Amino acid sequence: MTLKKGGLTRAVESEGSWQLDRIVTELRDIRARWRGAQQRQTECGAREFPSRDALRDIAEALCAALFPMRLGPSDLHQESEDFFIGYTLDAALNGLLHQVRLELRYDARRANTPQTEVDALARAIVAEFALALPELRALLDTDVLAAYQGDPAARSVDEVLLCYPGVIAVIHHRIAHRLYALGAPLVARIIAEAAHSATGIDIHPGAQIGAGFFIDHGTGVVIGETAVIGERVRLYQAVTLGAKRFPTDEEGTLQKGLPRHPVVEDDVVIYAGATILGRVTIGRGSTIGGNVWLTRSVPAGSHITQASSQHTSVLPTELAAS
Amino acid sequence: MTLKKGGLTRAVESEGSWQLDRIVTELRDIRARWRGAQQRQTECGAREFPSRDALRDIAEALCAALFPMRLGPSDLHQESEDFFIGYTLDAALNGLLHQVRLELRYDARRANTPQTEVDALARAIVAEFALALPELRALLDTDVLAAYQGDPAARSVDEVLLCYPGVIAVIHHRIAHRLYALGAPLVARIIAEAAHSATGIDIHPGAQIGAGFFIDHGTGVVIGETAVIGERVRLYQAVTLGAKRFPTDEEGTLQKGLPRHPVVEDDVVIYAGATILGRVTIGRGSTIGGNVWLTRSVPAGSHITQASSQHTSVLPTELAAS
Amino acid sequence: MTLKKGGLTRAVESEGSWQLDRIVTELRDIRARWRGAQQRQTECGAREFPSRDALRDIAEALCAALFPMRLGPSDLHQESEDFFIGYTLDAALNGLLHQVRLELRYDARRANTPQTEVDALARAIVAEFALALPELRALLDTDVLAAYQGDPAARSVDEVLLCYPGVIAVIHHRIAHRLYALGAPLVARIIAEAAHSATGIDIHPGAQIGAGFFIDHGTGVVIGETAVIGERVRLYQAVTLGAKRFPTDEEGTLQKGLPRHPVVEDDVVIYAGATILGRVTIGRGSTIGGNVWLTRSVPAGSHITQASSQHTSVLPTELAAS
Amino acid sequence: MTLKKGGLTRAVESEGSWQLDRIVTELRDIRARWRGAQQRQTECGAREFPSRDALRDIAEALCAALFPMRLGPSDLHQESEDFFIGYTLDAALNGLLHQVRLELRYDARRANTPQTEVDALARAIVAEFALALPELRALLDTDVLAAYQGDPAARSVDEVLLCYPGVIAVIHHRIAHRLYALGAPLVARIIAEAAHSATGIDIHPGAQIGAGFFIDHGTGVVIGETAVIGERVRLYQAVTLGAKRFPTDEEGTLQKGLPRHPVVEDDVVIYAGATILGRVTIGRGSTIGGNVWLTRSVPAGSHITQASSQHTSVLPTELAAS
Amino acid sequence: MTLKKGGLTRAVESEGSWQLDRIVTELRDIRARWRGAQQRQTECGAREFPSRDALRDIAEALCAALFPMRLGPSDLHQESEDFFIGYTLDAALNGLLHQVRLELRYDARRANTPQTEVDALARAIVAEFALALPELRALLDTDVLAAYQGDPAARSVDEVLLCYPGVIAVIHHRIAHRLYALGAPLVARIIAEAAHSATGIDIHPGAQIGAGFFIDHGTGVVIGETAVIGERVRLYQAVTLGAKRFPTDEEGTLQKGLPRHPVVEDDVVIYAGATILGRVTIGRGSTIGGNVWLTRSVPAGSHITQASSQHTSVLPTELAAS
Amino acid sequence: MTLKKGGLTRAVESEGSWQLDRIVTELRDIRARWRGAQQRQTECGAREFPSRDALRDIAEALCAALFPMRLGPSDLHQESEDFFIGYTLDAALNGLLHQVRLELRYDARRANTPQTEVDALARAIVAEFALALPELRALLDTDVLAAYQGDPAARSVDEVLLCYPGVIAVIHHRIAHRLYALGAPLVARIIAEAAHSATGIDIHPGAQIGAGFFIDHGTGVVIGETAVIGERVRLYQAVTLGAKRFPTDEEGTLQKGLPRHPVVEDDVVIYAGATILGRVTIGRGSTIGGNVWLTRSVPAGSHITQASSQHTSVLPTELAAS
Repeated sequence: MTLKKGGLTRAVESEGSWQLDRIVTELRDIRARWRGAQQRQTECGAREFPSRDALRDIAEALCAALFPMRLGPSDLHQESEDFFIGYTLDAALNGLLHQVRLELRYDARRANTPQTEVDALARAIVAEFALALPELRALLDTDVLAAYQGDPAARSVDEVLLCYPGVIAVIHHRIAHRLYALGAPLVARIIAEAAHSATGIDIHPGAQIGAGFFIDHGTGVVIGETAVIGERVRLYQAVTLGAKRFPTDEEGTLQKGLPRHPVVEDDVVIYAGATILGRVTIGRGSTIGGNVWLTRSVPAGSHITQASSQHTSVLPTELAAS
Repeated sequence: MTLKKGGLTRAVESEGSWQLDRIVTELRDIRARWRGAQQRQTECGAREFPSRDALRDIAEALCAALFPMRLGPSDLHQESEDFFIGYTLDAALNGLLHQVRLELRYDARRANTPQTEVDALARAIVAEFALALPELRALLDTDVLAAYQGDPAARSVDEVLLCYPGVIAVIHHRIAHRLYALGAPLVARIIAEAAHSATGIDIHPGAQIGAGFFIDHGTGVVIGETAVIGERVRLYQAVTLGAKRFPTDEEGTLQKGLPRHPVVEDDVVIYAGATILGRVTIGRGSTIGGNVWLTRSVPAGSHITQASSQHTSVLPTELAAS
Repeated sequence: MTLKKGGLTRAVESEGSWQLDRIVTELRDIRARWRGAQQRQTECGAREFPSRDALRDIAEALCAALFPMRLGPSDLHQESEDFFIGYTLDAALNGLLHQVRLELRYDARRANTPQTEVDALARAIVAEFALALPELRALLDTDVLAAYQGDPAARSVDEVLLCYPGVIAVIHHRIAHRLYALGAPLVARIIAEAAHSATGIDIHPGAQIGAGFFIDHGTGVVIGETAVIGERVRLYQAVTLGAKRFPTDEEGTLQKGLPRHPVVEDDVVIYAGATILGRVTIGRGSTIGGNVWLTRSVPAGSHITQASSQHTSVLPTELAAS
Repeated sequence: MTLKKGGLTRAVESEGSWQLDRIVTELRDIRARWRGAQQRQTECGAREFPSRDALRDIAEALCAALFPMRLGPSDLHQESEDFFIGYTLDAALNGLLHQVRLELRYDARRANTPQTEVDALARAIVAEFALALPELRALLDTDVLAAYQGDPAARSVDEVLLCYPGVIAVIHHRIAHRLYALGAPLVARIIAEAAHSATGIDIHPGAQIGAGFFIDHGTGVVIGETAVIGERVRLYQAVTLGAKRFPTDEEGTLQKGLPRHPVVEDDVVIYAGATILGRVTIGRGSTIGGNVWLTRSVPAGSHITQASSQHTSVLPTELAAS
Repeated sequence: MTLKKGGLTRAVESEGSWQLDRIVTELRDIRARWRGAQQRQTECGAREFPSRDALRDIAEALCAALFPMRLGPSDLHQESEDFFIGYTLDAALNGLLHQVRLELRYDARRANTPQTEVDALARAIVAEFALALPELRALLDTDVLAAYQGDPAARSVDEVLLCYPGVIAVIHHRIAHRLYALGAPLVARIIAEAAHSATGIDIHPGAQIGAGFFIDHGTGVVIGETAVIGERVRLYQAVTLGAKRFPTDEEGTLQKGLPRHPVVEDDVVIYAGATILGRVTIGRGSTIGGNVWLTRSVPAGSHITQASSQHTSVLPTELAAS
Repeated sequence: MTLKKGGLTRAVESEGSWQLDRIVTELRDIRARWRGAQQRQTECGAREFPSRDALRDIAEALCAALFPMRLGPSDLHQESEDFFIGYTLDAALNGLLHQVRLELRYDARRANTPQTEVDALARAIVAEFALALPELRALLDTDVLAAYQGDPAARSVDEVLLCYPGVIAVIHHRIAHRLYALGAPLVARIIAEAAHSATGIDIHPGAQIGAGFFIDHGTGVVIGETAVIGERVRLYQAVTLGAKRFPTDEEGTLQKGLPRHPVVEDDVVIYAGATILGRVTIGRGSTIGGNVWLTRSVPAGSHITQASSQHTSVLPTELAAS
C-alpha cells in the first residue's frame, strides 16, 4: 500500500488537534462575507426560517388525521378515531401556525409589516386551511378510487393508500397546494419537497390538479408551477409537464408568474417518459404515448405516439426545460 | 407587504380556536360516506391492515440476518454472529407472522374463512419463508458478485453490498418475491415499496429474476409484475420493463394475471433509459442500447440501438405503459 | 377463500417453532462458502468496515456546521453560532476519523501496511479535510447563488438552501469529492449514496465540478466518475453524463481510471433527459436540449436539440452506459 | 501498578473470545434446573408476564388523561383537551387490557381456566376501571387540595401537582388500588413499584386511603397491604405503617390476608420517622410525633411524642417489621 | 379459578367499547367543577406552566457545561471543550428563559403585570444566573474536594463527581438555590425535585449552604427552606434539618417565610438518622451522633449522642416536622 | 407583582446576549485552576473515564441475559432464548471491556503501566467475569427464592423478580461485587450507584453477601464496604450496616481497607430502621428489632429490641457513621 501523501501538506502542522479555532474563524469570515453580499441584516439573533423536519412531521400528522385507520398509529381503534383526529389536528395546526408565522415574518422583515398583523394573517391562513380539510379528504377519496380503478393489479383501496407512492405524493400535494393558495408558498414548497424525496415525484405546490388524479410508479415525474390538470387524469413514471425556455440571446430576465406549463384537460392519459413543454393544451380524452416529446397543443381525443410527435414538433432551435 | 385576505373568509369566525369540533364532525361524515360507498363493514374496531413501518423494520432485520457483518449492527463480532442471527430472525419472523396474519385476515373477512384456518396458513407461510432464507442468501451472493464484476469501479464485494442501491433493491426484491409466491402479496408489495422509496428502483414483487442480477445507478427502473428475467442480466438506470396497454375504445376490463411484461433471457444487458413493453422476448446474450424503445421480440445475440429500434418498432397507434 | 398450500410443504414439520437452529446452521455454511470463495480471512473478529448510518449522520453534521443558521438545529442563535460549529465539527471530525481509519485498515489488511502508519494517514486525511472546509463553504456559496439566479421561481437564497434537492446533492458531493481526492474513496462513496437515496441524484464522488453548479429537480441525474464540469453549469432532471461501453466481443477487461465520461465546459446548460456519453467535450456556452442523445463533442456555443442530435450521432453499433 | 492476576485463572484459556457457547450452555442448564425446581411447564413459548416498562408508560398516560393541562404534553391546548383525553385513554386502556390479560392468563394456567373466560374477565376489569376514572379524579382533587393546604410553602395547587413526590405517589396509588380491588393485584403492584422507584414512597396497592391524603417529602414512607387510612390524614417522610411479626419459635406459616397493619382514623398527623406497627388504631385527630415507635392503639385526640411512646410501648420481646 | 365478578357491574353494559364519550364527559365536568372552585380563569388556551421534563434536561445540560469532561458527552475532547460549553449554555439558557417566563407569567396573571415587563424580568434573571455560573463552579469544586476528603473510600475526585449521589444533589441545589434567590422559586423547586427523585436527597432550594458541603449516602436527607448551613459541613443519610410545628389548637395560619429551620455552623458533622428541628443553632465544630433527636441549640464544639440528647430535649408536648 | 430587581445588576449590561464569551472564559480559568490544583495533566485530549449511562445499560443487558424471560425484551420466545443471551452477552461484554479499560488506563496513567499490559488485564477481568455468570445466576436463584419465601404477600417467584426493588438491588450488587473483586472497583461502584438511584438501596460493591439474601421495601438501606453477610439473611427498609468513626481530635488519617463494618452471620433478620455500626458480629440466627441502635457484638440466637439495645450500647462519646 503506497500512502498517498500528496495534498496532505497543511495537516502536518496540526499535531493531534483539528485546529478548530482556525477553521471556525475562517468559516465566520466567509459567512460574514456572504451575509454582507446578501445585504443580510445580521442583528437578528435566532433562526427565522421554517424547518424541514418540523414540516415533514406536520404533514405526516395531517395525513394520519385525514386517513386515521390507514395512515394513523397502528394501535388505533375506531372508538377513539375522532379523539385521535381532534388531538392530532390541534397539535399539527399549532405546529403549522408556528411555521407559517416564521415564513410570513421572514417576508415581512423586508416589507416592514408590523408583527401583530403578520401573526394575525398566519392564524387566518391556518384556520382557513383547517376548515378546508374535509373538502380535501373528499377530493383525496376520488384520487384513491382513481388509483384503485386505474391499476388492474390493485387489490383494494387500502392497498392503494398504503403502497402507492403516487397516492402519497398527491396527498402531500393537495395539502401543499392549499397552503400555497392561502399565502404560504415556502411552507408549501418544503412539504412538496418532503414528498419528492420520499417518492421521486416532484409536483410544484402551485400546480392545479382536478379530482381523480393518479400517478403510477411515479419516479421522475415533474409537474411545474403553473400546470393545470383536469379531472380523471392519469400519469406514469418520468412524465414531465414543464416549461419551454428560450435561448440566452434574449434579455434573460423572464417574467415570473406567467402561465408557462401545460394545460391537461379531463380524462387524459400520459404514458411513461413523455415530455410536454410550454403553455400548450392537451385536449380532453387524449392519450400521449410513452417517451413522446410534445411542445404544441393537441385537440381533444388525440392519440399521440413517439413517431407522430417527432415528425411535427421538434424544431432545431427549440429547447426544453421544466 | 400586502396581506392577501382573499379566501380567508371562513377563518374570521374562529377567534383563536381551530373549530375542531366542526372539522372532526365533517371528517367523520365524509369517512362514513366513503365507507358506505366501499361497502365497508364499520363494526370492526381495530386497524386490520399491515403496517409500513413495521414491515420496513422487519425487512431491515432480515437484511441484517442475511449479511450480519455488513448490514448488521456495527458492534457485531464474529463470535456472536450466529447468536445475533438466531435472535434477530426470531424477532423478525414473529413480526412478519403478525403482518401476514393481518393481510390474510383482511382477505378472509370478505371470504368468511374461519380465523384459525387463516392463522395456521399465516404461520405456514412464514415458516416456509424462514426455511428458504439460506437459499435466498446463496442467490444474493450471486447478485453481489455480479455487481462487483459488472462495475469496474467497484473495489470490493463489501463496497458493493454497502453502497449500491441496486443491491439493496435486489435483496428486498428477493425477500418480497418469496413472500408473494407463498401467498402474502400485500406484505410483499409494502416491502417492495420501502425499497422503491429508498432507491428509486420499482420492482413488482411478482417479477421472476434469475441469479447474478445487477442494476447499476438504478433511479427510475420499473419492472412489472409478470416480467421474467434470466440469469446474469444487467440493467442501468431508468430502464422500464413494462406492459403495453390498448386504447380506451376496447372493453376496458383487462384480464388480471395474464403475462403482459417482457421475458429477458440470460446474459442480456439493457442500457439506461431503454423501454421494453409487452410480452416480448429479449433473446439470450442480447444488448439493448440506451433510450431504446422496444415493443417486439428480438432474437438471441441482438444488438439494438436507438436508431435501429425506431425504424422498426414504433407504430402510430401503439401506446406504452408499464 | 381457497388456501394456497402449494409450496408450504417443509413448514409442516415445524410445529410452532421456526427451526432456528437449522436455519442458522445453513446460513453459517453458506457464509463460510462465500468467505472461502472470497479468500476472506475469517479470523478477524470485529466488523472492519465503514458504517452507512454513521456517515450519513457525519455528513449531516458537516452540513449543519457549514450552514449553521439554515441546516443546523432550529433553536440555534447567532450568539452561539461559533460554539455550535466548533463543537459539531469536533464530533463530526472524530467520527469521520474513525470511519476513514476503518476504510484504510480494510485496504491495508491486504497490503500488510502497519497499523500505526495507516492511522497516521487517516488522521492526516481528516485534518486536511477539516482545513479545507472554509474553501468548501465559499464554493458552495457560489452554488447556492447559481440556484437562486437560475430558477426564476426561487424567492430567496434561504429557500434554495432548504428546498432544492440539487443543492443538498451538491453539498454532499463537494464533501465527498474532497474525501475522495484525499484518499478515502469508499467513505466518499457512502456519503454520495446517502445523497442519492435522499434526492435521486447520483454523482460519483470522483467527478470534478466547478463553481456555480446547479441541478434543477434532479431526479434521475447520473454523473460519472471521470466527468469534468466547468463553472456556472446548469443541469435538469434525468441528465446522464455517462460512459460509452463497447460490445462484449472485445477483451472485456476495461482499464480502470481512464477518462471515460464527458467534459462539460463553462456556462453550459443541459436540459432534462439529455444523455451525453463518453469522453466528449461540450464546448463553453453550449445548450443541450431535452432528451438529446449525444456521443460526440460539440464546439463552444452549440445549440443541440433532439432532432439535430439524432441525425448525426446515433450509429447502429454504439451502446450507451453511464 | 501491580496487576492483580489472582482469580483470573479461567480467563487465560479464552484467547480473544468470550467462550460464549460455554457460558450460554451453562446458563441454559441452570435455568432448566430452576424451572424444574419450580415445576414450571417450559413448553410455553412466549413471555407470559406483565411488563414493567409497559405499565409505567400506561400509568403515565393515565396521569396525563386525569390532569391533562398539568401532566399531559406541554403543547396541549384546552380546545383539544377532550380529544387528547379520549385518544390517550383508548390507547392506555387497550394497553392495560393486554397487561391484565397477561396477569390473568398467568394465574389461569395453574387453575386450568379457559382462555375465553379469562379474557372476558380482563376486559370487564379494565372497563370497570375506566368507568371509575372520574371518581378517581374527584378523589385526587381532594388530595391535591390537602397538599396545598398542608404545606404553607406551597404557592399554588399547580405547583403541588407538579413538584410534590407525595402527590405523584398518591395518584399512582389510587390507580393501583382500584386495579387491585378489581382483581389485578400484580399489575397494581408493578404500578406501585414504579412510583416507589421515582419517589421513595412505598404504598402497597392494597392499602385503603380516604380523601384528602397528603405525604410531605416522603422518602422512606412504607404503608402495608391491610392498612386503613381515614380522611384528611397527613404523613411525613420515613413513616412506617407496618406489621408486627412474632419470633421464629411459632409455626412460621403466617395466614395471608389477615388485617395486620394499622388503622389510622380521620384527621391524624404522623410526623417524620414515626413507626406504627400491627393492627392498632390511631384515634381520630391524633398527632404522632417524629421518630415515635408505637405498637399499641391510642384514643382519639392523642398527642404522642417520642418520650411518651417509649415509656409505654417498647417491650423486650417485641420486634417490628412492616 | 373463581372469577371475581363483584364490582364489575357497570362494565357489563360496555360490550366491547370503553364508553369513552361518557368517561370524557364526566372528566370534563369534574375539571370544570375544580376550576370553578379554584377561581381559575379557563379562557387561557395553552398550558401556562413550567415543564418537569424540560427543566430536568436543562439542569443536566448545565451540569455538563459546568463539568464538561466528566458530566458532558462521552465523546468530548478537550480541544472542543469551550465550544461545547458555549453551545450547550446557549441552548440551556434559552430553554431556561422560556421556563422562567412561564413561571413569571403564571404569577403575573393574578397580579395583572404587563407581559413585556414580565419578559424583561425573566431575561434579567437568566442573564444574571448565567453570569453566576463561574462562581458556582468554583463553589462546587470545594464540594467535590470535601467529598473526596470526607470519604476515605473515595479514590479520586473524578469518582466522587461520577458516583456520589450527594454530589449530584449539591450541584442541582446550587443551581436551584441561585434561581430561587433571583426570583424563580417554582423553576428552582422543580429542579430540586428532579434531584430528589434521582438521589433520595430532598433539599429545599431556599436553603443556604456554604462551601465544602458533603452528604454521604444521602437517601432520606431532608433540608428545609430556611436552613442555614456553614462551611465544611458533612451530613450522612436520613438526616433531617426540619421545622418544629405546634399543635392544632393554635390559629393554624402559620406565617410564611419566617426562619424555622436550623442554623448549622461551620465544620459540623451530623451522622445518619439525626433529626434537628426548629430555628436552633448547632455551634461551630460540633458533632451530632446518629439517630440523635435535637430541638435545642448546642454550643460550639458539642458532641451530642443519642443518649445525651434524649435526656435533655424531648418534651411530651413537642412535635416534629420538617 | 413587585418585580424583585435586587441582585440583577450585572445582567443589565447584557442587552439580549448571554455574554457567552465572558462566561466561557471564566469557566475555563476556573477549570485550569482546578486542574492545576489537582496536578492533573491536561495534555490528554479525550475523556478518559467510565460512563454512567453506558454502565447502566450494560448492567441492564446483563440482567436481561441472566433472566431472559423476565427481564429480557417482552417479545422474546423460548426458541430464541439462547440466541438472545449469546448476542446480548457479546455486546454487553464488549461494552464492559471498554469501560474496564477506561478505568484501568485512568489508574495506570499515574502508575506508568504500559497500555498493552493494562488492556490485557482488562480483557482478563471481563473474560473471568463472563465465566462467572452461571454461578452468579445460580446464586441469584437462591435470593429470588428467599424473597418469595420471606414475604407471605409474594404470589410467585416471577412477581418477586419483577416487582421487588430489593431483588433488583441484589442482582446489581452481585454483578458489581464480582467486578470489584476482579479489580474494577470504579466500574463496580458506578453499577452499584445505578441500583441505588433506582431503589434507594445503597450497597457498597465491596460487601460480601451469602446466598438467599433478601431486602424488603429497602428504601434507605446502607451496607458498607467491608460488611460480611452470611446466608439466608433478611433486612428491612432503612437498615444501616455502617462504620463507627472516632472524634476529630485523633490524627484524622484513617487507614483504608481495614474491616470496619459489621459481620452478620447466617439466618439473621434485621428489622426496619435498625443501625448496626462497627466491626461487630451479629451471631447466627439472631433477630434485631426495628430502630435498634447497636454498636456491640451479640451472640448467636439473640433477640435485640430497641429498649434492650439502648440500655447497653449507647455511650456518650460514641458516634455513628456508616
